[in-house]
Amino acid sequence: MNNANQAILEIRPFLGERLSTAMAVRTQHGKDQTWNTGAAPDAVAFVHSTAEVQQIVKICARLKVPVIAYGTGTSLEGHFAAPKGGICIDLSGMNQILEVNSEDLDCRVQAGVTRKQLNTHLRDQGLFFPIDPGADASLGGMTATRASGTNAVRYGTMRENVMGLTVVMANGQIVRTGTRARKSSAGYDLTRLMVGSEGTLGVITEVQLKLYGIPESIAAGVCAFPSVEACCLTTIQVIQLGIPVARIELVDEEHIKALNAYSKLGLSVSPTLFVEFHGTPASTQEQSETFAAIAAEHGAGNFQWASREEDRMKLWQARHDSFWATKSLMPGKEAIATDVCVPISRLAECVTQTQADLAANTLYGPIIGHVGDGNFHVVLFCNRADPDEVQRVKAVYGRMIERALAMGGTCTGEHGIGQGKRGYLALEHGTGLNVMRAIKAALDPDNIMNPGKNAGA
Amino acid sequence: MNNANQAILEIRPFLGERLSTAMAVRTQHGKDQTWNTGAAPDAVAFVHSTAEVQQIVKICARLKVPVIAYGTGTSLEGHFAAPKGGICIDLSGMNQILEVNSEDLDCRVQAGVTRKQLNTHLRDQGLFFPIDPGADASLGGMTATRASGTNAVRYGTMRENVMGLTVVMANGQIVRTGTRARKSSAGYDLTRLMVGSEGTLGVITEVQLKLYGIPESIAAGVCAFPSVEACCLTTIQVIQLGIPVARIELVDEEHIKALNAYSKLGLSVSPTLFVEFHGTPASTQEQSETFAAIAAEHGAGNFQWASREEDRMKLWQARHDSFWATKSLMPGKEAIATDVCVPISRLAECVTQTQADLAANTLYGPIIGHVGDGNFHVVLFCNRADPDEVQRVKAVYGRMIERALAMGGTCTGEHGIGQGKRGYLALEHGTGLNVMRAIKAALDPDNIMNPGKNAGA
Repeated sequence: MNNANQAILEIRPFLGERLSTAMAVRTQHGKDQTWNTGAAPDAVAFVHSTAEVQQIVKICARLKVPVIAYGTGTSLEGHFAAPKGGICIDLSGMNQILEVNSEDLDCRVQAGVTRKQLNTHLRDQGLFFPIDPGADASLGGMTATRASGTNAVRYGTMRENVMGLTVVMANGQIVRTGTRARKSSAGYDLTRLMVGSEGTLGVITEVQLKLYGIPESIAAGVCAFPSVEACCLTTIQVIQLGIPVARIELVDEEHIKALNAYSKLGLSVSPTLFVEFHGTPASTQEQSETFAAIAAEHGAGNFQWASREEDRMKLWQARHDSFWATKSLMPGKEAIATDVCVPISRLAECVTQTQADLAANTLYGPIIGHVGDGNFHVVLFCNRADPDEVQRVKAVYGRMIERALAMGGTCTGEHGIGQGKRGYLALEHGTGLNVMRAIKAALDPDNIMNPGKNAGA
Repeated sequence: MNNANQAILEIRPFLGERLSTAMAVRTQHGKDQTWNTGAAPDAVAFVHSTAEVQQIVKICARLKVPVIAYGTGTSLEGHFAAPKGGICIDLSGMNQILEVNSEDLDCRVQAGVTRKQLNTHLRDQGLFFPIDPGADASLGGMTATRASGTNAVRYGTMRENVMGLTVVMANGQIVRTGTRARKSSAGYDLTRLMVGSEGTLGVITEVQLKLYGIPESIAAGVCAFPSVEACCLTTIQVIQLGIPVARIELVDEEHIKALNAYSKLGLSVSPTLFVEFHGTPASTQEQSETFAAIAAEHGAGNFQWASREEDRMKLWQARHDSFWATKSLMPGKEAIATDVCVPISRLAECVTQTQADLAANTLYGPIIGHVGDGNFHVVLFCNRADPDEVQRVKAVYGRMIERALAMGGTCTGEHGIGQGKRGYLALEHGTGLNVMRAIKAALDPDNIMNPGKNAGA
């Protein structure tokens, strides 16, 4: 009997039917959206409490069995595949909103609460949590992957919005990081160390988050530009002027075509900015007018406004559906979503060089970008049965990352490392990777926490 | 010959006269503002480059001699005293601004550049760096202590504004953390781990910082309130409404008396908010009017505006001089500055209980607070020759920290741990302190980096 089977025997008594070894469940929990094939864990534990997570981790630590945390399974870089087997801890049943402190604009949730669940809960109190990585991900998973999304230009990413955590460490110890204070200079920043560690340093079971008041006025709009450069120059000027834009998204021509077809938007086929402003009616009016003036200087067409909530919702739903929109145009192919992030001054260059590289290799790769952050996504379409196309896609993918790093950027702005981008960590961080590995070895000497991912062994 | 002397012998050949063993220099570099007496290092190395820091650290690592980084010597918790001797690395000569990227709103500086030096350099480009911890501290020191100040409510602290670092680690390896991208999900957040580590994990030699455009319009004002509660309730409402206040400072009655005397301000003696708004002329106007309306609801007196730059400067200079203002009222006593930070909903309670405790113990301890963050400072005046007073001050100090922790706060919002607050780390972090110590032991196994400080041994 191997150690995983022993772990299953020891976990069964207290989880009962909430420990599954059914092949369908294991396969579904071991998927991978990258070039790698998935890998199923030996069992999936559907937990209800931090104490249960602790019990499981203690058993796995003693038996040296891998532990893989799982939220909604929406991460993109093979974060939750189990190449070394082990016990997958599914936290989706830990879905309690533990407290909302409206005066302090913070809340505490169990790791399995999803962002939409939280926002539905908050709406009546006039509050919201802004981070929106497309999928309705769990807040624990968003923390573990340092997620962001369209609002990051104004509200930051999970890095800026997680105040504290409850984490079960590899030795089974429960650690509570952070406090409810807005800032602290007391000790090492364990919260930020855990944010983005992708389950390789511990299992996050509770998250303390910053909240925001729902803005009195929200104005959104769409504006077509003659070029990607014009979009980027407009964005740079908007940010330099301190206009507190809440969202500013670049959508390239290929994506516009796809959105027109899929979401029936009827937009001009040209590089486009989707923007949103939050504030008082007077301030959003002023922001929009300033934006329109800057955009006009860069040759923008008419600025179409969506002032009604349903029109705004349609716009952003279309934006969030962009992956599916492009996928519907390429029914026979696999879609591999990837992202990089560069200094905003280099964004136009990075995007246009990537577009040129795609064209030169006759590949379809629509681009969409959180342009205020210098972050953009390419959906690479590929027929895996065509080895030549696979090779071309992989080459374009690799050059895009190298281009971003050469421009002072990062190999991923928000998708993470997982298994998919491990090969680029050394290229990006150099000697910093030694430091990451020393931390990993110190906190998880037997490498049981999500092995084979991120900076871990 | 002890090891420090051997290190001095080995460092001398390449630093020459920039290695000082003069007693006056050593004493000045080993001061301590806390209850502890200072402790001089064995020598002070005035370095000019990362390579020199690396050479020194490599020598000290081999000889197991302590290394203490020193910027401007303005930290408050005994961060740079040398209780175990060793080599103090004075980084004030590393004062080059290496690059300013105005399109990307970032810059890279050597660690010895001070915040005022940077802002003077940036002014012509319409840019500024907002973090202002009172003293004209070095940006390396501000990074190491996770400094903040009056602007943090709008712009964040060093935690949010450091994009990347060059650090010489305890093994002599040079690590470059972060990138010039605004966000990244590639690997562990080494930048945030170093921010606030107080020189115990490595010596910071370069800092990449976020910058901001100087606002088109700045409006500042002063508003007296009937009580600390009224100040806090006003602040809570301002923040809940999403008014992007840039500064909102609580100044208690004792401080107002001191400022009136020292800075000739002529303010009503009552709990007061100093506020500042940044934006366009229209938006600062709107923000101020909304603020005035909220303040009036909480019984505020007339809102006095300082629209001219010189009046604003006078106001904030007075705010920054508050320590000296109170000190001038108590010429015979030592002043010990301390801070805590709590959830904003608990701030009024925490401040008024602390005031009551001071009064009950016949102590003078004026309070000033970054009320938007829930952070406040007490300047505790004490005659060290009076053992009874010392005991009463220490007791009030301890109760203030315990009160903040019991309210979900932290033992320090911005002053740091240093030597002064080491005793409270376990109380605040519990098992988290084990994690901090494991990281420290992994990255600095011989404990040469600023020993006896923060979470280190």
